[in-house]
This record gives sequence, C-alpha cells and structure tokens, in this order.
Amino acid sequence: MSEINLGVTCDMHVHLREGEMCDLVTPTIREGGISVAYIMPNLQPPITTLDRVIAYKQRLQELAPQTTFLMSFYLSKELSADLIHQAASVGAVQGVKCYPAGVTTNSAAGVDPNDFSSFYPVFQAMEEEGLVLNLHGEKPSVAGESKDIHVLNAEESFLPALRKLHSDFPQLKIILEHCTSEAAINLINELNKDIANVQDIKVAATITAHHLFLTVDDWAGNPVNFCKPVAKLPSDRRALVSAATSGKPYFFFGSDSAPHPISNKARHINVCAGVYTQSLALPYVAQIFETQNALDKLKTFVSDSGLQFYGVKTQDLKSTEEAVIFKKDQIVPDCLSDGKGTNVVPFLTGEKLNWSVKWCPQSS
Amino acid sequence: MSEINLGVTCDMHVHLREGEMCDLVTPTIREGGISVAYIMPNLQPPITTLDRVIAYKQRLQELAPQTTFLMSFYLSKELSADLIHQAASVGAVQGVKCYPAGVTTNSAAGVDPNDFSSFYPVFQAMEEEGLVLNLHGEKPSVAGESKDIHVLNAEESFLPALRKLHSDFPQLKIILEHCTSEAAINLINELNKDIANVQDIKVAATITAHHLFLTVDDWAGNPVNFCKPVAKLPSDRRALVSAATSGKPYFFFGSDSAPHPISNKARHINVCAGVYTQSLALPYVAQIFETQNALDKLKTFVSDSGLQFYGVKTQDLKSTEEAVIFKKDQIVPDCLSDGKGTNVVPFLTGEKLNWSVKWCPQSS
Repeated sequence: MSEINLGVTCDMHVHLREGEMCDLVTPTIREGGISVAYIMPNLQPPITTLDRVIAYKQRLQELAPQTTFLMSFYLSKELSADLIHQAASVGAVQGVKCYPAGVTTNSAAGVDPNDFSSFYPVFQAMEEEGLVLNLHGEKPSVAGESKDIHVLNAEESFLPALRKLHSDFPQLKIILEHCTSEAAINLINELNKDIANVQDIKVAATITAHHLFLTVDDWAGNPVNFCKPVAKLPSDRRALVSAATSGKPYFFFGSDSAPHPISNKARHINVCAGVYTQSLALPYVAQIFETQNALDKLKTFVSDSGLQFYGVKTQDLKSTEEAVIFKKDQIVPDCLSDGKGTNVVPFLTGEKLNWSVKWCPQSS
Repeated sequence: MSEINLGVTCDMHVHLREGEMCDLVTPTIREGGISVAYIMPNLQPPITTLDRVIAYKQRLQELAPQTTFLMSFYLSKELSADLIHQAASVGAVQGVKCYPAGVTTNSAAGVDPNDFSSFYPVFQAMEEEGLVLNLHGEKPSVAGESKDIHVLNAEESFLPALRKLHSDFPQLKIILEHCTSEAAINLINELNKDIANVQDIKVAATITAHHLFLTVDDWAGNPVNFCKPVAKLPSDRRALVSAATSGKPYFFFGSDSAPHPISNKARHINVCAGVYTQSLALPYVAQIFETQNALDKLKTFVSDSGLQFYGVKTQDLKSTEEAVIFKKDQIVPDCLSDGKGTNVVPFLTGEKLNWSVKWCPQSS
C-alpha cells in the first residue's frame, strides 16, 4: 500500500498549552494528520470553569478552524455535580481529566489517587451525562513503606484504583490515558472480555505514538524522550504495540503530545516531562504499524475506535476531510519554531519517517 | 560524635580525565577527604601502554602532590601478558579496568562481555602478579532476543560472567565496580561466605556515594544524576546502603566520580553519563552513614577495606595525614569552575550536607 485513507482521524489526548506555545503547536494538529483532538485542561491555573473552557476552545478554534476540538475539565474540588450537568447540557466538555497530585507537568492541583470518594458526586453526574473520565493512571512515588512505588511501577500500582472506579460506576466511561505497561494492557483486556458490542465498552485505554517506540534505555540520558508515565521495559513496549495493532476497539490513539520549550528540556536538572509528537502524529504511528504489517488496522486505531468511544457525530465536525497517508520519506526536523523565540524539539528529531500526510475531500 | 578520624582514606574508583577538566578536578580529591585514589584509564584513546600510564600518573602527581595515585590499564587487545608482567615489575599499575563495549563514557574500545576467553592470558598474568581486575559489570542492552537486557537489568545480567571469571581464576582479585543492585550485593556476599581472613578475599565490590542516595526516580528528568550503571529501585538502594554500612571488608568505597562539562549535561539529547562527587566525597558518604547510625563503620568503608584489598603499603603513601570529618553544615555549590570556561555541577547541588573535612597529622 502506498496510500491509505484513514478517514476522519482523532487524537484523544492533546496538550496545547497557552500563549505563544499554543499559537505555535495548535495548527500542527492538522499538519500531523489529525482531524479531531481531545484537549487536556492542565493549564496554569487548570481549567475548572465553564467560562474558561469556552474561551479556551474559542481561541483554539481561531488558531485551527478546520480542527474539531473536544474539551475537558480538570478534576479538582472546584468541580461539582451541578457544573457537570450544566457543562454537559451546553456541550462544553466531553470529559474530565484526573491528575494524581505531583506526578507530571502542572499536576500540583491534582487529586489524591488513594481516595477518590470525595469526587463520587461528580463521577455520578458524569456517568449520567455520558462524559468520559480521563485517568492519568499513576500513583505518586514513595519508598520504604509497605510497598515501594517508583516511576516504573507507578502505573501498575494505580490499576486497583481503576478497577474500583469501574466497579463503583459501571456505566461511567473511563479511559486509562497513555498506558505504558503490559499490566495495564492486560487489565483493559480483562475488563472488556465479555463486551459483545462496541457501544457497551466502558473502559478503554489510549496509547501514545512515542510509547510505541521507547523503552527505559531511550530516555536514560535523553530528555527529549522523558515523559510521564515513563517508557518502561521492552516487554511493556511489545505489549503496547500488540494492543495498538490488535484492532481491538478499546485501544485507540491519544498522542499525549506535550510540548515544552527547548530551554525546559536542555537543562541539567528538573527537565520537564513530555514528548512533542503533534506535527507528525500519523507518520510516527504508521511507522510502527508498518513494521508489524498492521497498516490495515491503522484506521481502527487512529479513527474509528476513538470516535466511537466518545460518540463523535458527523454534524459536530468542523471538517469532514479525510486524512490520507502516503509513502514519502521525511526527516524529522531539529526544531519547530515560531521565529520569535518559541521552539520545541519534535520526537525522533533527525530521524527518517516513511510516511507523509495529505487531506482529501470526504470520499463517501 | 562531632569529629571522626577516618585515617588514610581511599577512593578506589576515580575518573580524572585530561586537560583542563583534569586540572580542575584532580586537586579536589584531597578537598573531598581522600588520600589514596585508584584512577580509571578511559581516556581518549584509553591507556594501554606503560609510557602513557607513567606520564599520566606524573601529571596527576604534579597537580596533587599529597595524593597517592594507584593506576590502571584499559583492558583491550593491545594488552599482553608480557606487558602485565613488565608493568607489575615496576609498580606502574595496580589493576586493569574492563569496560564492556558501548555501555558508558569512552567505552567504545571495550570488550565483548559475552566472551572473555581471548583475555585469559592477560588475566593469568594479573593473577600471578596480584593485580586487580576492575569490572564495569553490565551487559549491553538488547531487546527481542531470548532475554531482554536494558539499563535496569544490565548489571544482574552480567553476574554470571563474574561468577565464571572467579571460577576460572580463583586467585585473581576482582572488583565488581560501582555495584547498583540487590542481586549484585547478594552475589558478592555469597562468593565471600566461606572467607575467614580478609587476606583471602578475592572478589569485592565498590559502592559509590551517589548510588547510596539515588533511585530511578532521581535520574528521571535530572541529567546531573544520570550515570551508568543507572541507579535502580528503592529495594536496590536499601541493599547498597546495608552493604556499605555493614562493616564487611569486601564492600568498600569507589566514588566513580565522573566529571562532565555542564554543556554535556544540560542538553536535550545524548546527555553524558556520570556524577561528579569528588570534591565532597566523604561528606556525601558520611551523610548516609549518619542516617543509618553507622558512623562507627565509616572508616572500614572509606579506608581499611580498600587499602587492605589493594595491599597499599605505608611506604607507598605520598602523605600519611589522616582525614577527619567534623560536624559542620555546608551547602553543595552550584558549580565547580576554573574561571576559564571549564565547569562541572556537583552531586546534590544546592543541598545541605552535615559534615566537613579537615586533615590532621598521623595520630599514631
């Protein structure tokens, strides 16, 4: 295959920031071959009000008129069941993102993952409204107590909390975001083992582009590849690749593209966590699918399954153009820059990718 | 205890580089409270001849007249049994350092750790001469074969090779350098379980200062803490602390202080591996021993055991002054600099240490 139509594509985990970085990266959603983007709310301060999410979406829409933006709230004590119902009634958000406090960029206002009970009224309202709970599934690190938790088992340590949330809210749509471990893949498979219809899927997982490539060796000494959750062992990477290319509808694409200025990456301490993949999202993913002879499953991963889970309707799309990838080499640039001092280093900088992206009018 | 005499101290794993960095860091051996230093040969090109090791030692002695330098060759095909005998006869080297190819800084000229047999004549000569074999004990990373090897299990994967070397050369003195894992500690304990006299110890391990502090979480996103072997899990750190403070004579101090210019640390890809601890070597180690109420074992770790294993004689010392640590806070500086552009960031920059160092005339 030298050309593949992937339809209306979606990336269900996108960080766009604010200000100059936002201006720089928002248009690259479309450059990377993505039509529908689910936007994360971890700004400073995080998005917890209707006014702010509406204003943010409006700004993004100005920057990228053809991109369809799905929006989210940041789970915190400022949210209430009433706000959830109000936001749902006007279609302002499609979900709520839960950050454990302190585990990644701008998560200081997050929640204690050992006790979600104070948020149960919010979760109940979300369940009623069909909103999605997006989980950053990591426990904070701790050593020397009954069980050590560190960056390598932080996700696996979180899985019992996911299991409990699903058990307590069996109709709540939950996504384990940017999952990185074989243990997580196994749990998502297990929770879906009796699901007969895609409409009945309640627990899904997103998988990033970069975690399909990376293991711990790749971020040891390479801040560009450092992200949270960290990339783990070769066996974990294989499980992710296997899940992404499986065609199973509860694994779909969420890039977690998370741009940081190069000055926050090229420093000797306190490197910011996050990999920027937006501008080449589809070529990265296609590269892996090609190695697995699974290009026939690519549309399921980057389009059908995500749109299905979120219930995205055609009438809500800003554009019905379809993303087509075609066989044409490109070298990942050194840097993406606005020429005025804002810049970000893309994933796999300097390396060759086999696929490029173009847009075509809706085929059917 | 507010003052502790540690005698003639030794650091049995030191990188001093060449040129301006060497000029900057060599005097800091004594500043850090160390009298005897075993010097690693991974210069560019590595040290494999008598002339070069003699010239290097002479230069170091000029820079630090009171420091006693023990020298080493770099294991490579340029070494021969004859050279070992010749070097031993004039006391030019006390050991030979073995680097697996490609695992750390300046190791490209290293050996294949899957097959040491071509070096057996060299090892036999070393055994006869009582020289020490210093092992960087890591297998290179490989994924997708019968067993994945990655930075986290690279040391454990090397241990069978250590076991075989000891079995094939039971009288050869071997050090597993900068050991980082509970598995390594367990093997060293096992290989010494029937040793009744310290003179009979053939297999020992050095432990660095920084590995007593760090786990994987600490180098995730912090290039200053990135080194090879990487710091591992909390359980591994506890095993290292336990071994260092045990008083067992086959665990002793080797800092692996490995200075890199800040420009090689503060960059977004290809950060150099190595932690610089030389200028505060004893205060770092004392800080950990104090938390364990093990300051009474500190002299064993930083003096007696290392001197015993290498057979250092009083008449070979450049100075018989003794290092004394005393209770006085100090803040680790931001940077060590020569004022002419060469600089290095010390471990735990900006943090407070409880102990300081002074030198006293020999007490007995």
